[in-house]
Amino acid sequence: MSDHHTYKKVEVVGSSPTSSDEAIKNAIAECGKSIKNMDWFEVIETRGHIHNGQIGHFQVTLKIGFRIENS
Amino acid sequence: MSDHHTYKKVEVVGSSPTSSDEAIKNAIAECGKSIKNMDWFEVIETRGHIHNGQIGHFQVTLKIGFRIENS
Amino acid sequence: MSDHHTYKKVEVVGSSPTSSDEAIKNAIAECGKSIKNMDWFEVIETRGHIHNGQIGHFQVTLKIGFRIENS
Amino acid sequence: MSDHHTYKKVEVVGSSPTSSDEAIKNAIAECGKSIKNMDWFEVIETRGHIHNGQIGHFQVTLKIGFRIENS
Amino acid sequence: MSDHHTYKKVEVVGSSPTSSDEAIKNAIAECGKSIKNMDWFEVIETRGHIHNGQIGHFQVTLKIGFRIENS
Amino acid sequence: MSDHHTYKKVEVVGSSPTSSDEAIKNAIAECGKSIKNMDWFEVIETRGHIHNGQIGHFQVTLKIGFRIENS
Amino acid sequence: MSDHHTYKKVEVVGSSPTSSDEAIKNAIAECGKSIKNMDWFEVIETRGHIHNGQIGHFQVTLKIGFRIENS
Amino acid sequence: MSDHHTYKKVEVVGSSPTSSDEAIKNAIAECGKSIKNMDWFEVIETRGHIHNGQIGHFQVTLKIGFRIENS
Amino acid sequence: MSDHHTYKKVEVVGSSPTSSDEAIKNAIAECGKSIKNMDWFEVIETRGHIHNGQIGHFQVTLKIGFRIENS
Amino acid sequence: MSDHHTYKKVEVVGSSPTSSDEAIKNAIAECGKSIKNMDWFEVIETRGHIHNGQIGHFQVTLKIGFRIENS
Amino acid sequence: MSDHHTYKKVEVVGSSPTSSDEAIKNAIAECGKSIKNMDWFEVIETRGHIHNGQIGHFQVTLKIGFRIENS
Amino acid sequence: MSDHHTYKKVEVVGSSPTSSDEAIKNAIAECGKSIKNMDWFEVIETRGHIHNGQIGHFQVTLKIGFRIENS
Repeated sequence: MSDHHTYKKVEVVGSSPTSSDEAIKNAIAECGKSIKNMDWFEVIETRGHIHNGQIGHFQVTLKIGFRIENS
Repeated sequence: MSDHHTYKKVEVVGSSPTSSDEAIKNAIAECGKSIKNMDWFEVIETRGHIHNGQIGHFQVTLKIGFRIENS
Repeated sequence: MSDHHTYKKVEVVGSSPTSSDEAIKNAIAECGKSIKNMDWFEVIETRGHIHNGQIGHFQVTLKIGFRIENS
Repeated sequence: MSDHHTYKKVEVVGSSPTSSDEAIKNAIAECGKSIKNMDWFEVIETRGHIHNGQIGHFQVTLKIGFRIENS
Repeated sequence: MSDHHTYKKVEVVGSSPTSSDEAIKNAIAECGKSIKNMDWFEVIETRGHIHNGQIGHFQVTLKIGFRIENS
Repeated sequence: MSDHHTYKKVEVVGSSPTSSDEAIKNAIAECGKSIKNMDWFEVIETRGHIHNGQIGHFQVTLKIGFRIENS
Repeated sequence: MSDHHTYKKVEVVGSSPTSSDEAIKNAIAECGKSIKNMDWFEVIETRGHIHNGQIGHFQVTLKIGFRIENS
Repeated sequence: MSDHHTYKKVEVVGSSPTSSDEAIKNAIAECGKSIKNMDWFEVIETRGHIHNGQIGHFQVTLKIGFRIENS
Repeated sequence: MSDHHTYKKVEVVGSSPTSSDEAIKNAIAECGKSIKNMDWFEVIETRGHIHNGQIGHFQVTLKIGFRIENS
Repeated sequence: MSDHHTYKKVEVVGSSPTSSDEAIKNAIAECGKSIKNMDWFEVIETRGHIHNGQIGHFQVTLKIGFRIENS
Repeated sequence: MSDHHTYKKVEVVGSSPTSSDEAIKNAIAECGKSIKNMDWFEVIETRGHIHNGQIGHFQVTLKIGFRIENS
Repeated sequence: MSDHHTYKKVEVVGSSPTSSDEAIKNAIAECGKSIKNMDWFEVIETRGHIHNGQIGHFQVTLKIGFRIENS
């Protein structure tokens, strides 16, 4: 058995009309459909669209780290 | 008709005793009183005041982008 | 009486299974047990653990500023 | 006569379907309609929209510095 | 129908012997062979090789954002 | 009465042949002619012109924060 | 034959109980199992776990650049 | 005797109604009451309060490095 | 039992005449004399002194994170 | 024969009334008069002068890397 | 006559026991002994040595820009 | 005798097939052939070439500071 692991990070943008935390959760839920072993996330940027003078969507860029299978 | 638009960004600080998302909304609502065509926002910094050992106000610095009229 | 104050900043990481704002509050509450005169906080980084495809904990790194006693 | 001047910077986003340099020129031309004494610009960020697999618009964020009238 | 989308970003380096804008276009054209729904790009870094005292290639690092299919 | 305020920041460049602190003061004095409720400043960059081998002017870029009237 | 190439970067985290250089090598070895034409790496961050008062693992975040096949 | 030393850094904010350099000196004087072996400082940020259109206090954030006793 | 922990970070500079990794280890060993529950470290900066044209000491600035007792 | 090379970087500012790419070329051409073995360049900043409401000169700061002779 | 100039930047550290502005002036004076056509400076970092609990020297890192002769 | 010194920094890239620390040493050794009074170094970036799936060379960009003769 190896004494170390290797991880990969992907950069995604989650969005939500409700809140910035919800945007993070949406991004993680979407990535969970295709990525196994998700381990941590890092918020890179928070921004959003304004529609008719109100927040249309929060848009949160995050990196998601996951262990490479069998590493 | 022009094939491009020009946008301007203003930097504002919204505050809220409730939450960081609310601070963003308050800033956008305040700016909407004088700015038309608001299009997006970017969070630059999140900080706040502590009062009697608890958060007094969340203070979120954001940039708000809007299209310059007739551009 | 002096015409100026001196402040110190400590860097802490608060966590919460619920929300990023709650992670900030938890860090401030914990620091309040040993630090007097807490004055402001600055969010440095937001990240978190993912457990079974969902957010286990939000982890928010912040700096807390407080006035040095008698300064 | 004063021995110094004061300048202000505004942050704008110019766009162009043609080139990144053209996006800068478009932003300066638009600002020149309302700002006198423009003196310099600084490019902050270059990005753009992709439409049907091709660049729709270059979008260049720049700061434009100008001398405050009578300063 | 969902009320939000999720996007992914990939980081690529385009090159061109002609111009920095051309290097961006080449990178987008190459990515378009395998990525659908490309939406925007962000320039991260511009550099290049010098050959015999002249620019051999402009090399532009950019991030390309695209919507995750069915998100 | 509202439980929060909104602030705006403007970016200016003050100059002075004498000192960097004086350049800050000059910028604030100039802005005070048209801006009410100025609350704080942040130094962004310090630079200057050199004339005949000596400092011609210190040039300090700063952001000035002020409360939006009635916010 | 094309007069330019396109490269892609992936962000990975290698780890090693021995040294930071070894963590880089482990990450490259792991990526080499699935990526051809690896060309360069860039160290983004060095950190690690502490176990019983000693370094458990060095963890080095790096970006690995590789030429896109046939580009 | 060890062939190396270990240093610690603390982050403080000094203030002064007079000048930015004086704010640095005030912070160092205050820290010198409780810290021995202070060795160097690094300026992190310069800002200040504006009171009645004039600088109320310069506020300089600095890190102070000192050798850990017996290290 | 609480559902969250709070961590504190301290910034230290380790040194070593031998290697940059050794400088990290020396800093952690020194901090372990007074800090319990050390959990992770982050490298902030690597530099060093040059003596007679050769490296006298590697100097590595790192942040060490540890759980606050009973948090 | 040595198994490694050493490179030096110089920081220069090229200018051009025509385009930002031309400003890069002008800087490289000028440096080529005195530097041999130029190998690569990195763009650090793009800015420019505005004259009569139009771009007077693009000014591009770049670093030029070259191999030290006989290294 | 050429329609453009090329500039070079050198990075220097000036010091002064008196003030941070004086450290800048000392650096410029020293460079003026060997560099002609000095045009501007940019402050990169301000730090200093502490001696017996007081500032021994302010140390200011700056870049000095000058026009390349005949460019 | 002057009460202050002036230092200059040069930016170099050292390389080594063996280790990142060795790349630093190689750069310092090369610079020592032409620079006297070398005083300190600062690591700016670590990267490297990959050859046949393994590290060909570590490449470390560093700044070397040295006192200007007679300053």
